Amino acid sequence: MTLPTDPVANLAALIRCASVTPAEGGALSALEDMLKPLGFSVERPVFSEAGTPDIENLYARRSGNGPHLMFAGHTDVVPVGDESSWTHPPFAAEIAKGEMFGRGAIDMKGGIACFIAAVARHVDRTGGPKGSVSLLITGDEEGPAINGTTKLLEWAAAKGEKWDASIVGEPTNPETLGDMIKIGRRGSLSGSVIVNGRQGHAAYPQLADNPVRGLLSLVEGLLHPAFDKGTTDFQPTNLEVTSIDVGNPATNVIPAKATATFNIRFNDTWTAETIQTEIHNRLDRAAKRKKYRTGKKTPVDYELVWRDRPSHVFLTRDDRLIEALGGSVQAVTGRTPALSTSGGTSDARFIKDYCPVVEFGLVGKTMHMVDERVALADLETLTQIYQRFIEDWFERGLPDHAFVG
Amino acid sequence: MTLPTDPVANLAALIRCASVTPAEGGALSALEDMLKPLGFSVERPVFSEAGTPDIENLYARRSGNGPHLMFAGHTDVVPVGDESSWTHPPFAAEIAKGEMFGRGAIDMKGGIACFIAAVARHVDRTGGPKGSVSLLITGDEEGPAINGTTKLLEWAAAKGEKWDASIVGEPTNPETLGDMIKIGRRGSLSGSVIVNGRQGHAAYPQLADNPVRGLLSLVEGLLHPAFDKGTTDFQPTNLEVTSIDVGNPATNVIPAKATATFNIRFNDTWTAETIQTEIHNRLDRAAKRKKYRTGKKTPVDYELVWRDRPSHVFLTRDDRLIEALGGSVQAVTGRTPALSTSGGTSDARFIKDYCPVVEFGLVGKTMHMVDERVALADLETLTQIYQRFIEDWFERGLPDHAFVG
Ligand SMILES: [Zn+2]
Ligand SMILES: [Zn+2]
Repeated sequence: MTLPTDPVANLAALIRCASVTPAEGGALSALEDMLKPLGFSVERPVFSEAGTPDIENLYARRSGNGPHLMFAGHTDVVPVGDESSWTHPPFAAEIAKGEMFGRGAIDMKGGIACFIAAVARHVDRTGGPKGSVSLLITGDEEGPAINGTTKLLEWAAAKGEKWDASIVGEPTNPETLGDMIKIGRRGSLSGSVIVNGRQGHAAYPQLADNPVRGLLSLVEGLLHPAFDKGTTDFQPTNLEVTSIDVGNPATNVIPAKATATFNIRFNDTWTAETIQTEIHNRLDRAAKRKKYRTGKKTPVDYELVWRDRPSHVFLTRDDRLIEALGGSVQAVTGRTPALSTSGGTSDARFIKDYCPVVEFGLVGKTMHMVDERVALADLETLTQIYQRFIEDWFERGLPDHAFVG
Repeated sequence: MTLPTDPVANLAALIRCASVTPAEGGALSALEDMLKPLGFSVERPVFSEAGTPDIENLYARRSGNGPHLMFAGHTDVVPVGDESSWTHPPFAAEIAKGEMFGRGAIDMKGGIACFIAAVARHVDRTGGPKGSVSLLITGDEEGPAINGTTKLLEWAAAKGEKWDASIVGEPTNPETLGDMIKIGRRGSLSGSVIVNGRQGHAAYPQLADNPVRGLLSLVEGLLHPAFDKGTTDFQPTNLEVTSIDVGNPATNVIPAKATATFNIRFNDTWTAETIQTEIHNRLDRAAKRKKYRTGKKTPVDYELVWRDRPSHVFLTRDDRLIEALGGSVQAVTGRTPALSTSGGTSDARFIKDYCPVVEFGLVGKTMHMVDERVALADLETLTQIYQRFIEDWFERGLPDHAFVG
């Protein structure tokens, strides 16, 4: 039997499955076909929730007597956009000038293809790692992410699965393979501030209460002063006002209500709870200061509504995991990867509740774009990094207390 | 023949015509029936413009050998709102507890009813004024005001009509009849500021350019510092931001564009042209200062779009007109009216290009509301004021150069 040692062949098979979120598109079946010959037991649980599409997911484990490493990722991809703008069809896996074109080539069928190739080479060369390896693959990372990673983790944990470390194969390198490992993520929180004023005629502002003035005072309070200067491991916390909406079409009318929506990316100076308290305090202070209001004695009348659930900030401090990965990147590429916590949120924020987690994958440049593509050389390099990482991590062994085999 | 000397009867006849803008509703015919017995010649020109309803208007003149006084007003009324909330039907002119109920009772069929009664009493008592009196009545004051006063003035002027003074019968008194004569109006101007940024992910603000930050800088520049402290005759100039709109539903996305719309009410420190220049200068300075932007070297990229045509500021300095009206108010009510330039714009801003103009009418409290109503006592008082004003103004004579009879 041929083992899936070639990341290029693995990726071509995955790209040819049009698994635009939430469709499985054959991608999980293709994965199962690669994993079975390597000795993985494969399960494909489907999760449902009212109002969201049913999602098929995959959990595969190759058991061994030793620590347990989990690779996490997703086979669903974002839509192709304007298909006629693609140089090569988005689901054909065509190769040109040393690059394979296709939706998901980078984000993140490429990462999965390389990890499987790495495991296959390891199995081929040594018979496989002396512990357990599992793949936790969702079909709902690019969608609402309701029936994906969180439920898959709960489902596996409920069956008794325990992991000692996890690597997420999302694209982490900004420019060149070897640039960056992600060892944590900022938290993220969104909210809306609604200011209630009193409608009136623009010629009689003293008889009305323009909520735009109140809102401007509150927004200034949200933006100033800076939340922090950043920490050793994290960028400064940042708040962006992502929308302001009044919707008043009449220029001679002072409106009754104005809303601002904001998103805040916060570092480990804060927790979701303390940053929420800080936002409340800033708004209350600004409501009393009411810089932009003229002659009103009462504070700005506002409501604060939090949107969605917060993403919590996290930082992985597992030296063994970070050193095994960083050392492998350096050994294969000659580059010292930055240990970063920059960028958006990822499924690592859910995994961190179960075991230490780091992220390393391909170069993100073309992800989500027309002509998403990966250099074949990068696929080979990433496969070698993953393979070396697997070998190194299992060889290092775990601290005494750390695992159940 | 009975002359229309009773303002209550005149008003009842007008209220019973359901002349909700732009409908004539029989109101101009009712007016014609009152004016003909007083010796007025009546014309009812209809004006049209593509995209707007045809509007019937009325111009009536009672010619004499002496100066020419014009009374201006409108018979169209705003919609009734929730008809079931009215205590008395809006087009029935029912009287209860000394008040007549009906849409337009205050704004401004009441003013017209009183002026006609005043002329009728004057004709009845003295045979009529020794000059000319005309009524310039539009059916398009509460609507788009395209086929109304401006065209009626042009039409009459083209026929050779010249006026020495005008009184507009809009409700001018805030609380009690006799409170306030309007002798001018602030100008009004509206515009929108559109800031162009660069869309991006909220986790990577350095790769995007949040137009909300730029817009906040510009809006602060519009609001501060104060434009002026007011003048002898006018309130301070005031700017209200009437809407801010971004329309970005995704809290993790930095939007591409943000718009703020504002209305400015300016006094005689400014002309429409100088205030436009001031707004431009404020925006340019704020665009360079860019307080709310982080790390961008270029000024905020914005466009300014003026909306509609400006209303020009004006102040009437005709002592004879103001003294005749103010003296009549004082003689009849015992109150000294304030000479005010407060409030919104009115058709006086068009008339002021033809002759000196002042405004005096009923108490505005219930105008445009459910249960719009007028005290019968106020109708009698206003009729006496108008009658005394007509007598006094014609008796004072004009300065030598002032009129063609
Ligand atoms: Zn991804
Ligand atoms: Zn009116």
